[in-house]
Amino acid sequence: MLFHVRMDVNLPPDLDPAVRADLVSREKARAVELQEKGVWPQLWRIVGEYANFSIFDVSSNDELHDLLTSLPLFPYLKIQVTPLATHPSKI
Amino acid sequence: MLFHVRMDVNLPPDLDPAVRADLVSREKARAVELQEKGVWPQLWRIVGEYANFSIFDVSSNDELHDLLTSLPLFPYLKIQVTPLATHPSKI
Amino acid sequence: MLFHVRMDVNLPPDLDPAVRADLVSREKARAVELQEKGVWPQLWRIVGEYANFSIFDVSSNDELHDLLTSLPLFPYLKIQVTPLATHPSKI
Amino acid sequence: MLFHVRMDVNLPPDLDPAVRADLVSREKARAVELQEKGVWPQLWRIVGEYANFSIFDVSSNDELHDLLTSLPLFPYLKIQVTPLATHPSKI
Amino acid sequence: MLFHVRMDVNLPPDLDPAVRADLVSREKARAVELQEKGVWPQLWRIVGEYANFSIFDVSSNDELHDLLTSLPLFPYLKIQVTPLATHPSKI
Amino acid sequence: MLFHVRMDVNLPPDLDPAVRADLVSREKARAVELQEKGVWPQLWRIVGEYANFSIFDVSSNDELHDLLTSLPLFPYLKIQVTPLATHPSKI
Amino acid sequence: MLFHVRMDVNLPPDLDPAVRADLVSREKARAVELQEKGVWPQLWRIVGEYANFSIFDVSSNDELHDLLTSLPLFPYLKIQVTPLATHPSKI
Amino acid sequence: MLFHVRMDVNLPPDLDPAVRADLVSREKARAVELQEKGVWPQLWRIVGEYANFSIFDVSSNDELHDLLTSLPLFPYLKIQVTPLATHPSKI
Amino acid sequence: MLFHVRMDVNLPPDLDPAVRADLVSREKARAVELQEKGVWPQLWRIVGEYANFSIFDVSSNDELHDLLTSLPLFPYLKIQVTPLATHPSKI
Amino acid sequence: MLFHVRMDVNLPPDLDPAVRADLVSREKARAVELQEKGVWPQLWRIVGEYANFSIFDVSSNDELHDLLTSLPLFPYLKIQVTPLATHPSKI
Repeated sequence: MLFHVRMDVNLPPDLDPAVRADLVSREKARAVELQEKGVWPQLWRIVGEYANFSIFDVSSNDELHDLLTSLPLFPYLKIQVTPLATHPSKI
Repeated sequence: MLFHVRMDVNLPPDLDPAVRADLVSREKARAVELQEKGVWPQLWRIVGEYANFSIFDVSSNDELHDLLTSLPLFPYLKIQVTPLATHPSKI
Repeated sequence: MLFHVRMDVNLPPDLDPAVRADLVSREKARAVELQEKGVWPQLWRIVGEYANFSIFDVSSNDELHDLLTSLPLFPYLKIQVTPLATHPSKI
Repeated sequence: MLFHVRMDVNLPPDLDPAVRADLVSREKARAVELQEKGVWPQLWRIVGEYANFSIFDVSSNDELHDLLTSLPLFPYLKIQVTPLATHPSKI
Repeated sequence: MLFHVRMDVNLPPDLDPAVRADLVSREKARAVELQEKGVWPQLWRIVGEYANFSIFDVSSNDELHDLLTSLPLFPYLKIQVTPLATHPSKI
Repeated sequence: MLFHVRMDVNLPPDLDPAVRADLVSREKARAVELQEKGVWPQLWRIVGEYANFSIFDVSSNDELHDLLTSLPLFPYLKIQVTPLATHPSKI
Repeated sequence: MLFHVRMDVNLPPDLDPAVRADLVSREKARAVELQEKGVWPQLWRIVGEYANFSIFDVSSNDELHDLLTSLPLFPYLKIQVTPLATHPSKI
Repeated sequence: MLFHVRMDVNLPPDLDPAVRADLVSREKARAVELQEKGVWPQLWRIVGEYANFSIFDVSSNDELHDLLTSLPLFPYLKIQVTPLATHPSKI
Repeated sequence: MLFHVRMDVNLPPDLDPAVRADLVSREKARAVELQEKGVWPQLWRIVGEYANFSIFDVSSNDELHDLLTSLPLFPYLKIQVTPLATHPSKI
Repeated sequence: MLFHVRMDVNLPPDLDPAVRADLVSREKARAVELQEKGVWPQLWRIVGEYANFSIFDVSSNDELHDLLTSLPLFPYLKIQVTPLATHPSKI
């Protein structure tokens, strides 16, 4: 079951660089892990913004919420979730 | 799996009264049918508006989309769907 | 008398972890207490957000305001209240 | 129990003048009736707009919804209801 | 001459409790004083928010501005003023 | 007493040209009349829009509302009124 | 080069059913054709709305504009285009 | 003196095709004429929309307003004008 | 050439009082100076807000930008500029 | 391939002046460099705002994203990118 997700990252510019580097590194590791598990099949950067559009493929709303809140950057994310259905013109 | 849905009904004031009555009557019948099936467990009128907040309980996004587009009033509805997860403080 | 409430929690990411843990723990205790009293019958997490949709069942506006401002997280909450009426198609 | 209500009237400029006059006249009669019953204690015109701020005094959300939908202009109104509580500094 | 005023209070959650208590206490005293003078005849709390709807009765725009900026909480208030006129259906 | 007013004119493009010409001509005559009376001292076109910023000088909110609703284009206007006070830096 | 596109379809409810059926049928044929050419690789229905999220894969902005305006439903579409870049965490 | 202008074209889908063709043809002729005069030096289509971003180079606000209202499509345009200044980093 | 300007002042409530007093005093001096030069002919306080509506009379966009950025409060201002043209009904 | 970019600079007023001067100086150097390379052909200041409208000319979305995130001020920028196509009336 697919969900469209927009994430905007709001890291304060004056965040301690070591804290920031650690957060970003752990975020990347988690993103790779979730892609490899197949639950985060699509991920694009929005040009000019520290933000992404993503597609998640999960079996329930609860699973999706658990995945999103497991992201190390979650406290700094503004997330907007949109449920997707099959499009009748999709080949 | 639960979804929060807001529906705003935009029937033009100059709609033919017979067409309107037929639409509203068929909408009510469909709403009753979906409640009886257990997929539309909650339904409230928003005070002062021709709008409702609803809870749907379905097994997939596709099922929810099919249910919502099956409503006779669908062409006149503005619908906003929000996926719900279990709240950690829910007893 | 039912009210629809959306609460968005805005805890600063740099809040002292002990203060945060205490706030969240007291919030949960209060949420359980109000559910047990029957005034907070429904409570859902919005997927991907630190936010909830709730239904409150109270006998007056004043009672609702007192309940909401009694929440330990109140200073960090953005709350939007919508009064609900019986829907004519509700079975 | 008090509610703050904003009503914006959207009558199409090309509405038949007789229909319009009838609607406005019946709206006024209903507004007078509800004021005399004590349920619509305050009513002000917003300067420069075909809109009003009102205070309603009712015993339930359902009563308020019934009153608002009983207004002859209801199909042309955009209504926003805000529940009010006693202010702690009110003398 | 009547004005509708919405005030939203934005006190930072980490404000020194003594400073906060002093501000709130002086605000209340000033609110009482202005009500007793008859210039602030109506004052309601918006349910679930640290905000109010108020009616002011003053003889000029300058007088209203002076009153609002005299409030001890003014630096923390977001204020929106709407001039009111007599409603033709008011009894 | 001064008020800042923004007016946006929404004449439908397919309005009968004679009706339109009559409306615009009567609007202009009324605008001239109100300027000559001194109640509409300032009036500017917003570049690229069928809209204006205006300053009205009236003795009460009711007088302003009567003036604005007396405009022949009133049914086609979106009007936003802002009360003005003396600026402390005005020479 | 990838672009994220949101399309909202605004077909008037009173559109002639034959005109509507023809439009929708030609839209579907064109959507299939563009998918087969590989320029419209992803296409999802937004649950509860007559809208879609799409991914287009084109070699230039001009090509994308030509594709979008070639859609039979174009006069009824509200389209929002967002350019996408490679995400650094994409595997 | 430069101005940034966004124009959104709102032609009703059911406009008579001959009227539409005439409008669009006259608009194009006028756009060419203004470019040749040097007052409309830049003009781009916004991808996926019936809209443009433009740069106008005029000697006064009045001249710009006259140019914009001289466009045959003006009654169907939503126009937003932003004055531009020299950027300190411009080479 | 006239421009309509709205300025909203956002001074942090916890700004050092001496810094604040100095800023406000220098802002006032600059405002007086620009009024005396004739480039800032109108200036009104918006009732209930730390904001103003102003009219500037300058010979170019660059001059206006230089004037606005010369204001001591500029780093704390949200400024919105609207170019004005002569209104055809102005007497 | 052209893109329209709006950048709003949000430097905190209390930023260390030396840090600020360094950021602004490096930003200017980078802006000059990108203009000289031909990828940033247009750049205008928005009157009254610490913001600009720009045109970028790049060969791909990825190139544009790399350029924008290479700006020294990037952590303080709100950026909005709009892809541009050739306008049919452009001479």
